[in-house]
Amino acid sequence: MSTVNAANFNGQKPTIDPNDSAMLLIDHQSGLFQIVKDMDVPQLRANAIALAKAATLLKMPVITTASVPQGPNGPLIPEIHEAAPHAQYVARKGEINAWDNPEFHAAVKATGKKTLVIAGTLTSVCLAFPSIAAVHEGYKVFAVVDASGNHSKLATDLTVARLAQAGVVPIDIMATLSELQGSWNRPDAEQWAAVYAQAMPHYQLLIESYLKAQQVANEHEALDSQR
Amino acid sequence: MSTVNAANFNGQKPTIDPNDSAMLLIDHQSGLFQIVKDMDVPQLRANAIALAKAATLLKMPVITTASVPQGPNGPLIPEIHEAAPHAQYVARKGEINAWDNPEFHAAVKATGKKTLVIAGTLTSVCLAFPSIAAVHEGYKVFAVVDASGNHSKLATDLTVARLAQAGVVPIDIMATLSELQGSWNRPDAEQWAAVYAQAMPHYQLLIESYLKAQQVANEHEALDSQR
Amino acid sequence: MSTVNAANFNGQKPTIDPNDSAMLLIDHQSGLFQIVKDMDVPQLRANAIALAKAATLLKMPVITTASVPQGPNGPLIPEIHEAAPHAQYVARKGEINAWDNPEFHAAVKATGKKTLVIAGTLTSVCLAFPSIAAVHEGYKVFAVVDASGNHSKLATDLTVARLAQAGVVPIDIMATLSELQGSWNRPDAEQWAAVYAQAMPHYQLLIESYLKAQQVANEHEALDSQR
Amino acid sequence: MSTVNAANFNGQKPTIDPNDSAMLLIDHQSGLFQIVKDMDVPQLRANAIALAKAATLLKMPVITTASVPQGPNGPLIPEIHEAAPHAQYVARKGEINAWDNPEFHAAVKATGKKTLVIAGTLTSVCLAFPSIAAVHEGYKVFAVVDASGNHSKLATDLTVARLAQAGVVPIDIMATLSELQGSWNRPDAEQWAAVYAQAMPHYQLLIESYLKAQQVANEHEALDSQR
Amino acid sequence: MSTVNAANFNGQKPTIDPNDSAMLLIDHQSGLFQIVKDMDVPQLRANAIALAKAATLLKMPVITTASVPQGPNGPLIPEIHEAAPHAQYVARKGEINAWDNPEFHAAVKATGKKTLVIAGTLTSVCLAFPSIAAVHEGYKVFAVVDASGNHSKLATDLTVARLAQAGVVPIDIMATLSELQGSWNRPDAEQWAAVYAQAMPHYQLLIESYLKAQQVANEHEALDSQR
Amino acid sequence: MSTVNAANFNGQKPTIDPNDSAMLLIDHQSGLFQIVKDMDVPQLRANAIALAKAATLLKMPVITTASVPQGPNGPLIPEIHEAAPHAQYVARKGEINAWDNPEFHAAVKATGKKTLVIAGTLTSVCLAFPSIAAVHEGYKVFAVVDASGNHSKLATDLTVARLAQAGVVPIDIMATLSELQGSWNRPDAEQWAAVYAQAMPHYQLLIESYLKAQQVANEHEALDSQR
Amino acid sequence: MSTVNAANFNGQKPTIDPNDSAMLLIDHQSGLFQIVKDMDVPQLRANAIALAKAATLLKMPVITTASVPQGPNGPLIPEIHEAAPHAQYVARKGEINAWDNPEFHAAVKATGKKTLVIAGTLTSVCLAFPSIAAVHEGYKVFAVVDASGNHSKLATDLTVARLAQAGVVPIDIMATLSELQGSWNRPDAEQWAAVYAQAMPHYQLLIESYLKAQQVANEHEALDSQR
Amino acid sequence: MSTVNAANFNGQKPTIDPNDSAMLLIDHQSGLFQIVKDMDVPQLRANAIALAKAATLLKMPVITTASVPQGPNGPLIPEIHEAAPHAQYVARKGEINAWDNPEFHAAVKATGKKTLVIAGTLTSVCLAFPSIAAVHEGYKVFAVVDASGNHSKLATDLTVARLAQAGVVPIDIMATLSELQGSWNRPDAEQWAAVYAQAMPHYQLLIESYLKAQQVANEHEALDSQR
Repeated sequence: MSTVNAANFNGQKPTIDPNDSAMLLIDHQSGLFQIVKDMDVPQLRANAIALAKAATLLKMPVITTASVPQGPNGPLIPEIHEAAPHAQYVARKGEINAWDNPEFHAAVKATGKKTLVIAGTLTSVCLAFPSIAAVHEGYKVFAVVDASGNHSKLATDLTVARLAQAGVVPIDIMATLSELQGSWNRPDAEQWAAVYAQAMPHYQLLIESYLKAQQVANEHEALDSQR
Repeated sequence: MSTVNAANFNGQKPTIDPNDSAMLLIDHQSGLFQIVKDMDVPQLRANAIALAKAATLLKMPVITTASVPQGPNGPLIPEIHEAAPHAQYVARKGEINAWDNPEFHAAVKATGKKTLVIAGTLTSVCLAFPSIAAVHEGYKVFAVVDASGNHSKLATDLTVARLAQAGVVPIDIMATLSELQGSWNRPDAEQWAAVYAQAMPHYQLLIESYLKAQQVANEHEALDSQR
Repeated sequence: MSTVNAANFNGQKPTIDPNDSAMLLIDHQSGLFQIVKDMDVPQLRANAIALAKAATLLKMPVITTASVPQGPNGPLIPEIHEAAPHAQYVARKGEINAWDNPEFHAAVKATGKKTLVIAGTLTSVCLAFPSIAAVHEGYKVFAVVDASGNHSKLATDLTVARLAQAGVVPIDIMATLSELQGSWNRPDAEQWAAVYAQAMPHYQLLIESYLKAQQVANEHEALDSQR
Repeated sequence: MSTVNAANFNGQKPTIDPNDSAMLLIDHQSGLFQIVKDMDVPQLRANAIALAKAATLLKMPVITTASVPQGPNGPLIPEIHEAAPHAQYVARKGEINAWDNPEFHAAVKATGKKTLVIAGTLTSVCLAFPSIAAVHEGYKVFAVVDASGNHSKLATDLTVARLAQAGVVPIDIMATLSELQGSWNRPDAEQWAAVYAQAMPHYQLLIESYLKAQQVANEHEALDSQR
Repeated sequence: MSTVNAANFNGQKPTIDPNDSAMLLIDHQSGLFQIVKDMDVPQLRANAIALAKAATLLKMPVITTASVPQGPNGPLIPEIHEAAPHAQYVARKGEINAWDNPEFHAAVKATGKKTLVIAGTLTSVCLAFPSIAAVHEGYKVFAVVDASGNHSKLATDLTVARLAQAGVVPIDIMATLSELQGSWNRPDAEQWAAVYAQAMPHYQLLIESYLKAQQVANEHEALDSQR
Repeated sequence: MSTVNAANFNGQKPTIDPNDSAMLLIDHQSGLFQIVKDMDVPQLRANAIALAKAATLLKMPVITTASVPQGPNGPLIPEIHEAAPHAQYVARKGEINAWDNPEFHAAVKATGKKTLVIAGTLTSVCLAFPSIAAVHEGYKVFAVVDASGNHSKLATDLTVARLAQAGVVPIDIMATLSELQGSWNRPDAEQWAAVYAQAMPHYQLLIESYLKAQQVANEHEALDSQR
Repeated sequence: MSTVNAANFNGQKPTIDPNDSAMLLIDHQSGLFQIVKDMDVPQLRANAIALAKAATLLKMPVITTASVPQGPNGPLIPEIHEAAPHAQYVARKGEINAWDNPEFHAAVKATGKKTLVIAGTLTSVCLAFPSIAAVHEGYKVFAVVDASGNHSKLATDLTVARLAQAGVVPIDIMATLSELQGSWNRPDAEQWAAVYAQAMPHYQLLIESYLKAQQVANEHEALDSQR
Repeated sequence: MSTVNAANFNGQKPTIDPNDSAMLLIDHQSGLFQIVKDMDVPQLRANAIALAKAATLLKMPVITTASVPQGPNGPLIPEIHEAAPHAQYVARKGEINAWDNPEFHAAVKATGKKTLVIAGTLTSVCLAFPSIAAVHEGYKVFAVVDASGNHSKLATDLTVARLAQAGVVPIDIMATLSELQGSWNRPDAEQWAAVYAQAMPHYQLLIESYLKAQQVANEHEALDSQR
C-alpha cells in the first residue's frame, strides 16, 4: 500500500485540490436506487445533487454516464444535469466498469486533471471499479461513498476496506464539499450554504431558526406568550 | 373505551369522510424539528407538506398554529402555507394545548366539521393534547402520527397507546392520503400521484422508471449494450 | 370495542375456523414491493406465497386483485396464482379500497364464508381499509400483517393499533398457517412442512440437518474426522 | 376495560389535573439503573430528576421509596431529593410492590389527591405493580414509562400493553411535564424552560443558539468570515 | 374486551395469585429455538429456566409438553425438568395447540387452579393458541412473552396485540417472578436472588461487586493503587 | 503490508481476472448456517448459489468441501452442486483450515490458477484461514465476505480488518459477480441478469415492473382506473 | 502509509506522551451539535468536556476555535472554557480547515509540542482536515473521534478509514484519558475518577453503589427486608 | 506499517502457533462489565471463559491481572481461574497499562513465548495498551476483541483501526479457538466441542438436536404425530 500511496500522492497532502480535479458521476439511475440499502435513498439523491452543484460553482469538469438506461436500471435522475448543465454525458456500450469504455476514458483524459472525485451507484461496482482502475493509472482518487449507494451496509464496509487497500481515498459528502469550498470568506458563500442546506436538512433548520431569531431581535417582536 | 367509541362513531365505519373533515396542523416549527428523534426529519417534513397539499386538492379547511415562534421553538416551516394557501393561521398566547386557546377552538368550531385530521410536533404533546380534548368534546379524531414527530420512539409508542385508549384513531400518512383520495378514477389523479411521489421517494423512483420503460417501448430505443 | 367484538365473535373463540374462511390477497405487486420498508421483502414475498399454498391445501376460496397494475404499481407477483391456481382475480376500476369495488365485494359474498383472512400491500392501506370495512359489515377478520408490507415500521405500528381498535384481529403468518393446519396428525403433513420450510428458512435448515443426522445413524456413516 | 375507565375517569378528560395530583418516585437506585436496557440511562436519570423539579415548581406532594437500598440494588440517586426537598421518603420492609407497604399506602392516602403520577425502576415491576393496584382502588394513574427504566425493550412493550389493559394511562416525560405546566404564559416560565433543557439536550442547544443569534443581532456583531 | 375482562377477573386486581396458579411450559425445544429471532436465545433459555425454578420454590404445579420432539423440532431443553423435577410431561399426538390435546387439557384441569402462567415457543403459536383458548374457558391467563420466543419481532408485536384483545394479560419475566415472590422478607429470599441473577446477568454483576465491596470494607483491604 | 501486496499483485490492478481464477466454496452447511448472525441467512444462501452459477457460466473451476458433515455441522446445502455440476468435492479428515488438507491443497494447485475467489462459513474461520494461507503462498485472493456468514457482526468486522492486513482483498457478492461478468455486451447477458435477480430480490422486482411497463406500452393496455 | 508512519513516529510506540502534547478543540458549537447523528449528543458533549478537564489536570496547552459563531453554527459550548480556563481561543476568518488560519497555526507551533490530541465537530471536516494537515507537517496526531461528532455513522466510518490511511491515529475518549493519566497511583487520582464518572454514566453508578456498600458494611446497617 | 509487520512476523503466516503462545486475560472485572456496551455482556463473559478453557486444554501459559479490584471496578469474575487453574495472577500497583507493571512484564517474559493472545476489558484501554506495547517490543500479538468489551461500538471500531495500524492482529473468539485447536482429528475433540457449545448457544442447540435425531433413528422411535 505504501508504494501505491507514494506513487499517487508524491508526498503531497492527501487532500483535494479543486483546481486539479474533475468529477465523475456514474450510474445514478432510478432503478438502481431501488436496490440501495446502505443509506437513506433521499439522502443519497440529495448528496449526488450537491456534488453536481458544487462542481458548477467551481466550474469543475463533470462527466456522467449510465449503465444501460433503456433496461431495468432505469434513467439517470434528472437533477444531476439540471444542477450541472455543463456536465458531459457519455453513453457506454454495456461495459460495467465505466473506465473500460474508450469514450469515457478519453473524456476523463481530456479534462487534463489528475485528481478525480468519483461517486457511483452501486458503490461496490460502479464507484469501486473505476476508482481502482484510475489509481492504477496514477490518478489521485477520492471516492464519495455516501453519494453512491450500495445493496447492503456490509457490502459498503467491504468496499471501503478494498478501496483503502488499493490506495483510493474514501471520503464523505461533507468533507468533499468542504475541501472544495475551502473558506466561507468568498463571494459565493451564500450559494455554498444553500448547497449544504439542501443536503443536510438539520442545517436548513438551523438557518431557518437563525434568521427568525435575528428578525425577532431586529424587529423587537414580542413573544406570543407575553402578549 | 367502548363507550367512547360508541359515542364518537355511532356505529359508522371508523374511517375518514373527506366531506366532514377539517385538518389541524400544529407547531411544525424549525426549532422543534431539531428535537425529533422518532423518525427521519426530512420524511416528517415531507409528510406534513403532503397533508397540506391533499387538503388543498379537496378544498378542506386547514387551521395552523405555532407555539411561541418568537422563541427557541422557531418559525413555522414555510412550505405548509405555501402548499395550503387557504389555511388559517391562529396565534396562541402561550397555551401548550392549542385546544385551550379560545381563538383556535372557535376556528375549529367555525368549520362546521365533526371529523378532525390532526398532526403536530411534538407528537406526545402538540398532537396528543388537542386530539384527546377533541374526542372528549365528541369529535371523530384521526391523529397522523408520522406527520408529527416526537423526542423518542418510546415516547411515540406510549402516545399511540394513550391515544388508542382515549378513543383517538392513530393513523399514518399513507392511510390518511388514501382515505382522503378514495379512488384513482378521478380527474385530479395525477396531482394525487405527485403528492405521493413527494412524500414517498421510492414511489417517485417507480414513476421515473415506469415512464422511461414506456418511452423505450414506444420509441423502439435500443439497449446501449446492444448498439 | 367490546361491542364490536361481541357483535363479530358472538362469544366464540377469536380464532380462525378453516371451514368458514375465505382468503383475500390484495395488491401484492412488484412496484409496491419496492416501497416496503417495515420488513424484509423476500420474507414478505415468501409469506404471501405461503398463504396461497395453505389455501390450496385446504381448498379454501382465494380472491386476488391489483391496484392499477398497468401503472407504476406494477404487476401482481406471479407466484400467488401459481400457488393457488383456483384463485379468482378481480380487476378494480381505480378504487383504493378493494371493498369499494362492487365486483370484489360480490365475489367475497359469493364465497358464503363469514371469516376473512386478508393480506395486502401496503398494510396501512390495502390491508387495513378492506379489513375495517369487513368488520363493519359483520365479518370476522384476521389481518396477516407480515404477509402485507408497509412503507415504514412506524406506519405498521400505527396500523396494528388502529386495526385492534376497530375489532380486526392482527395476526402473523405462522399463527395463520398453524390455525389453518390444526394438527400434524393428517395425511398432508409433509406438504404443510414444505409450506413452513419455504417461508421459514431456518426451519428448512432444521429439516436438512435432521435428515442428514438420521441418515448418518441409519447408514452407520463414520465422521470424516475419525476416518 | 371500558368499565374500569368509566369508574376511574367518570367521563372527564383522561388528562392530568395538577391540583388533584401526587407524584410517586419509586426505586430509582444506582444498582437497578445498571440493569436498565430499554432506554439511555443518563436520559432516564434526567427524566426522573425533571419530574421532581416539576413537582417542586407546583408544590405537588412527592413520595419516594427504595427497595432494600442496603443490598445490591444500591442507594437512591441523590438528585431526586435535591430537586424535590419537600419529598417524603418511606422505607419499606421488603415488599416488592410499594403499594403493599402500609406506611407507603398511608402516605399516598394522606395527600388527599386522587390522581397519581408514578415512575419507578424497573418499569415492569416497580412502576407497574403500584399503578395497577392504585387503579384497582379507584385512583386515576399516569405511568411515566420513560422516567422508569426496564430490563429490555420487549419487557417495556409488554408492560405498556398490560398497563393500558388495566386502565392505567401510559405517558412520556414531555407529555407529563407539559400537562403539569399548561401554559408558557406564567411567571415561572423560565424555570420550566430550564426543566425541559435539562431533560432534552437538543432543546438546550436550541436555547443556546437562539440567545447567541439574538445577541449578534442586538450587538451588530460581524461574521468572522466577513471581518 | 370489557366483557371478557369482567368475566375472567370479576373485578379483582389483574395480578397473579401464586396460590391459585399453575404453570404451563410448552414446546421449549432445541430445534424451535433456532427459529427464534425476536429476542436473544440464551436470554430466552434463561428466562424459561427461571420460571421453572420459581415454580419449584413455590411448589406450584408445572405441566410441560413438546411438539413432535422426534422430528426437526428437536428435544425439550433438559434444564426445565432439572429445575422443576415435579413437572408433569404430557406427550401430544400432533395437535399444534396443546389445549386441543385431551390429556394436556385434563392435566391442567386436575390442578384445580384457575390462573395460568404460560410460556411457549413459538410465541405466536405455542403460547398464543392455548392462552386464547384458556381465557375462552374462563381462566385468568398470564402470557410470559419473553420466556417464549418467536420468528420475528413483528410477529411478537402482532401477538401481543392479539393477546391483549382476547383478554390475555401480556407480561414479562421479571414482573412474573416478582408477582410470584411478593416480598424479600421471606426465608427463601436468597434462593429468589439466585433465580434473578441467573436470568439477569447484570444483576449477577451487581451482587458480585456488592459482596466484594463489603469484603474490602470488612477486611480493611487496601487499594492496589495505594499499596 | 506493502511487501505482501507487491509480492502478490506485482503492480497489476487488484481486480479479478476471470481467466486466471478458481473458486473455493467451503463449509456452506445447514448446521453452520444456524449459527450465522452477521447477515440474513437466506441472502447468504442466495449469494453462495450465485457464485456457483457464475462459475458455471464462465466454466471456472470450483472446489467444494465440508467440515465433518456427518456431525452437528450438517450437510452441504444441495444447491451449490446443483448450480455448479462441474464442481469437485474434496472430503477432509477433520482439518479446520481446508488448506491444511493435502487433497484440497492439491486440487487447488491442479487448477493451475493463481487467483482464488473464496467463500466459506464461518467467515472468521472457514473463509479467513485458507485465504490467509493462500496469500502466504503467493496467490491473489478475493474473499467474498457476504457469501460466507459469521457468528456476529463484530466478528466480521474483525475478520475484514485481519484479512486486509494480511493482503487478502475483501469483496462483496455484487463486485465479484460484476468483475467476473465484465460487460452486458455478451451473448449470455440474460443468464447473468438471472443470476443477479436470484441474489438481489429488488432487482428481480425491477425486471418484473420493467417488462410489464413495456408490455403495457406495446399492447396499448388501458389503465384499470381509466376503463 | 509505512513512510508516513516512519516519518512521524520514528519507531517509538504510537502512544500519547502527555509531556509532549497539546490539545486542539475545534468547533464544538451549539448549532453544529444539532447536525450530529453518529453518536449520542449528550455523550459527545460530556466527552469534549472530559478532554478539557484532563488537559487542565495535566496543565497541557489547549487551543480552541470556532467556525463563524455569529452565524447558524452557533456559539462554542461554554463548558469547554469553564473546564479549561487556561485554554487559548483563536478566532478564524472563515477558513473551514483551522490549520489554514495563520493565527491558529502559529498558536499550535508556539506550544512547542510535537504531539497533538485533536477533537472537532464535524468529525469528517473540522477534526479530519487539521489532523491530516498536521501529520503532513510531521506532527504525531491522535484524533479523538468520539469527542467530535459527525452527520452520519457512515461518514464517520469513512473518516476513520481516511485518517488511518493518512497516518493519523484514530482513538476514543477512554483510551485518550487513560493514556494521559497513566496510573491510579498518583495524588490526583480522585479527580481523574471524577472525569471518568462525568463522561461514563455507568461508572458513576458503580461508584455510588460501591460507596453505599462500603457504608453499609462499615456502619453495620441492616437490610430493610430484615428489619 | 509494513516495517512493523516485517519486523514481527518475519514473513511467516500471520496466524497463531499454539506452541509459541501465551495468553493474557486482563481486567475481566464485575464492575467494568457494567460499562460494556459494544456487545452482549453474557456473550463477553462466555467468550473470556472459553479462552481460559482452551488454554487449559493446550496447557498454554495464562497470566491474569486486575485493575484495583478493591475499588468500584470490582472483582475478577471467578470463572476464569476456575477454567484455567494453572493461570498466574499478578497484582498491579495502579498502572492502567498492565505492560507498565514490572511483575506483569516479567511474568510474560518468563513464559519464553513470542506470540501473545490477549483479551481485556475495556477493549480500547486494557486490551489495546498492552497489545501495542508488546508489538513495539517485537511480540506477535493477537487481540481477541470480542472477549474484551468496550464502552461503545464506536470506540471498538476506533480501537480496531488503531490496533491494525500498529501491527496488532485483530481477531475474534471463534478464529482464536479454531487456530488453537487446528483439527477435529484429535483425542480431546469432544472437549473442544464443549468449549464451542458453551460460547456459541446456537451450536449447543445443534448438538442437542443432532443427538436426538440420531437417537430417534437408532431406537426407531415413532413420531408423536404418527402414534
